[in-house]
Amino acid sequence: MNIIQSYNELISKAKDATVFGTAEGIIHWDMETMMPPGAVEQRSLQLALLTRFHHQMSTDPKIGKLLAAIQENPKYETLGQAKKRNIFLINKIYREQTSLPEKLVAELAKQEAITVNVWKKAKAQKKFSLFKPDLQKLLNLSREAAEILMKVKETKTPYEALIDNFEPKMTVDKITVTFDALQRGLKQLISKIQASSNKPDSAILYCSVPAENQRKIAQLLTKTLGYDTASPAAHGRIDETEHPFTTGYYDDVRITTHYYPNNYASSIFSVLHESGHALYEQNLNPRWKYQPIGSTCSYGVHESQSRFYENVIGRSKEFWTSFMPKLKKVSPSLANVELDKFFRAINKVELSKIRVEADEVTYNLHVIIRFEIERDLFADKIAVNELPEVWNQKYADYLGVKVEDDSEGVMQDTHWASGLYGYFPSYALGNIYSGQITATITKDLPDWRNQLALGKLSPVNDWLKRNIHSQGDLYDPEELIKKATGRNLNSEPYLQYLNEKYRSIYGF
Amino acid sequence: MNIIQSYNELISKAKDATVFGTAEGIIHWDMETMMPPGAVEQRSLQLALLTRFHHQMSTDPKIGKLLAAIQENPKYETLGQAKKRNIFLINKIYREQTSLPEKLVAELAKQEAITVNVWKKAKAQKKFSLFKPDLQKLLNLSREAAEILMKVKETKTPYEALIDNFEPKMTVDKITVTFDALQRGLKQLISKIQASSNKPDSAILYCSVPAENQRKIAQLLTKTLGYDTASPAAHGRIDETEHPFTTGYYDDVRITTHYYPNNYASSIFSVLHESGHALYEQNLNPRWKYQPIGSTCSYGVHESQSRFYENVIGRSKEFWTSFMPKLKKVSPSLANVELDKFFRAINKVELSKIRVEADEVTYNLHVIIRFEIERDLFADKIAVNELPEVWNQKYADYLGVKVEDDSEGVMQDTHWASGLYGYFPSYALGNIYSGQITATITKDLPDWRNQLALGKLSPVNDWLKRNIHSQGDLYDPEELIKKATGRNLNSEPYLQYLNEKYRSIYGF
Repeated sequence: MNIIQSYNELISKAKDATVFGTAEGIIHWDMETMMPPGAVEQRSLQLALLTRFHHQMSTDPKIGKLLAAIQENPKYETLGQAKKRNIFLINKIYREQTSLPEKLVAELAKQEAITVNVWKKAKAQKKFSLFKPDLQKLLNLSREAAEILMKVKETKTPYEALIDNFEPKMTVDKITVTFDALQRGLKQLISKIQASSNKPDSAILYCSVPAENQRKIAQLLTKTLGYDTASPAAHGRIDETEHPFTTGYYDDVRITTHYYPNNYASSIFSVLHESGHALYEQNLNPRWKYQPIGSTCSYGVHESQSRFYENVIGRSKEFWTSFMPKLKKVSPSLANVELDKFFRAINKVELSKIRVEADEVTYNLHVIIRFEIERDLFADKIAVNELPEVWNQKYADYLGVKVEDDSEGVMQDTHWASGLYGYFPSYALGNIYSGQITATITKDLPDWRNQLALGKLSPVNDWLKRNIHSQGDLYDPEELIKKATGRNLNSEPYLQYLNEKYRSIYGF
Repeated sequence: MNIIQSYNELISKAKDATVFGTAEGIIHWDMETMMPPGAVEQRSLQLALLTRFHHQMSTDPKIGKLLAAIQENPKYETLGQAKKRNIFLINKIYREQTSLPEKLVAELAKQEAITVNVWKKAKAQKKFSLFKPDLQKLLNLSREAAEILMKVKETKTPYEALIDNFEPKMTVDKITVTFDALQRGLKQLISKIQASSNKPDSAILYCSVPAENQRKIAQLLTKTLGYDTASPAAHGRIDETEHPFTTGYYDDVRITTHYYPNNYASSIFSVLHESGHALYEQNLNPRWKYQPIGSTCSYGVHESQSRFYENVIGRSKEFWTSFMPKLKKVSPSLANVELDKFFRAINKVELSKIRVEADEVTYNLHVIIRFEIERDLFADKIAVNELPEVWNQKYADYLGVKVEDDSEGVMQDTHWASGLYGYFPSYALGNIYSGQITATITKDLPDWRNQLALGKLSPVNDWLKRNIHSQGDLYDPEELIKKATGRNLNSEPYLQYLNEKYRSIYGF
């Protein structure tokens, strides 16, 4: 076989794994949205089997042989950038997956399932002591895996290897420096906001809007953003779940939201957020479909897109200038909502205890707390039984709030119970990236906010498609962001964006 | 490995294939009910990949080795009935699947996809000439497969091998004799019905019932039948598709229906029919879950259950005696519907051209026509280009109707375009089995119709669960029916049931 034949066979195997993954995605989506409640046992058998098959596909020894044949071939250097990146990405997954003993992978999967269940019970009963033993077991297994991955990924610490699962090549040092600067900037901004006497009132957001109307609003929002969920050619759809999410790839990307009768804004911002994720998946370069480079770059970059559409677009005055009349047409009960009051209400800043309910500004502090705890936990600076104390202290220090019990404290998120260590930093990295992107868009398209006020999203959509979405996984995240915005990871543009926006709202 | 170890490993492989099949079922269900229209290409890749994997699982050479080790083991004879049947069923699938060359399987799948698409276009344009060339190709490939399967299955003809795919061990001779008797009986019955001056009027079925109310009726029907689609412990659900179907297994069985605003009875009988299929899947013996014997027996037996609930129960006066008040509560626009008029309307007999719209009596003639044509096509007594002529002649002879064009004639069904040759007989076999079952239930539970009029379905449900559903695939279909009803395949009880019922309606 010549190098091109080997390459094509390798890509064909990668394509199978990707297509298989999209089928698994449908099964997961069905579980969250459609599955009859009594089908849990059958579904867990299906998922375990599909996961096993997927693992077998990714660790097929033939992949190793093809990789060796390609990389040792003298013509390897003549391959183009896209082909080399595909080979790099396949090699990365293959080496990582084959490095983990099957027994450990199975134990981890089992302990994750157990720990999530225990977490649910412990959270309901507000008892961290119930959660602790299984959390400790899951942490031990995750550390065991992280220590193996550290060698393959050549990271400085096990925790960094876990971060690399979500944000490739990102280092703990870089995050620490960037988050420290972000934290300082946020504290200053929050002081000014707190000192302001011109605070928004969010009462108008809590009027009654029937689910039927909220459903129409959701559809109109996705349509306005360029994410088609309703036409006879649609590649997307909207369903309902308690926790909104996005799943899918290219031709079939689905989002979920929830319709609270007395909090219609909740669904609006969920839909804007998830639509950002969906647009990224749909705007990937179609020529790379099912290839490793034909996928999104990282969790952080994914989050930069969702946060951009949710906050930079969706919480801007310009967007609502054009969208408010449409909103009122669909939901007559909102006929008397004033644009300015609405804009202020959706940008109210408040120190709070729950991450998923936090506003645009304080959200990042919630994330920084989690990052610091994870980092110190894996560096043995914190023990599991100290978690509630450390958590509560940080919430008092950074957010000035008193956590009453561990359900609204250290047990509020599912991530640690699900084995998702190293995931949290992506949320704040996404915000920081979105700040860099916003600054660059403003430079490249000085008129974009005026266009937005006229209801024209295409200039911004096209910029993102060209500079982020269509780039797929051709670059590591920081490299992609540098190519798109001209600079490495830096929280300054994001802080500047926040300061300008909230100065106008709070008048400091 | 001793024989029990080999057996357990074999069963574990069969279990994987079954679980994998349930996951494929969800992907198919999603395609019919939920998938965004633009996702067709991605879905076809997923389905092709999953089919390939499933085929690999069923033809894994390890299965062949385990089967040989078990069957050659001197202790084989000491295994119990259930184990032996599992081994028999695994062996059957393995031998059949491995006998077909992979190239032929792939060509068949491809030609099926092409022919279905061509059929849709040809049907819309009412041009059989467009359909003919691809139908001929598909028939040639199907015959090639049938000739291979004939040797493995040891059937008398290739067509009989195709019937065996749906109704194991059923012979063409047996069907021919039985259908001839059925046809004679139906002709006599239809003459009497046509001669009657006391014909029902079905006008009351075509009043307006909003989809919302029809949805409630559907839920109430499934609940009444003991198929739970709505409670927090439900193992089922109801969705909407143009062509109703049932899919699923044990804990997760889903049906679909359609809500025509001016034809509410259409959904009622679809739901009753599909609920019969669903109850069969849900009432399989839980001890055999995911084993080959833990599955339904045949397409004919499956159809006997759907037709029993649709017609014997659902078109009986007794069922509507108890259900009519519930129906009226859910759908106030039906408040004035009289039980007797309704009962007569839903049992109106009319000679017609379209199988899926046919009544309980004439339906079988549509099926017999298709069986005769398939049988003669595979015996080279009919050529593809003669199909429209033969079809129209039979419709004139058996049903006395004149087919105006091939869209309402030979191209009305998807089966032949989808490669489903040998499937049609199951529909009439199901009716015949349901007649034998009804006669036996009447003997075993003389009071069952009175119970039904009181809304008590459990005596009948329990009988079916005990004698049919929970028997799974422990017996070949005719054997199962003989165990349950005391006789081999025989159309007499079915004809007797029809005669008694329609005599009371038409008064002959």
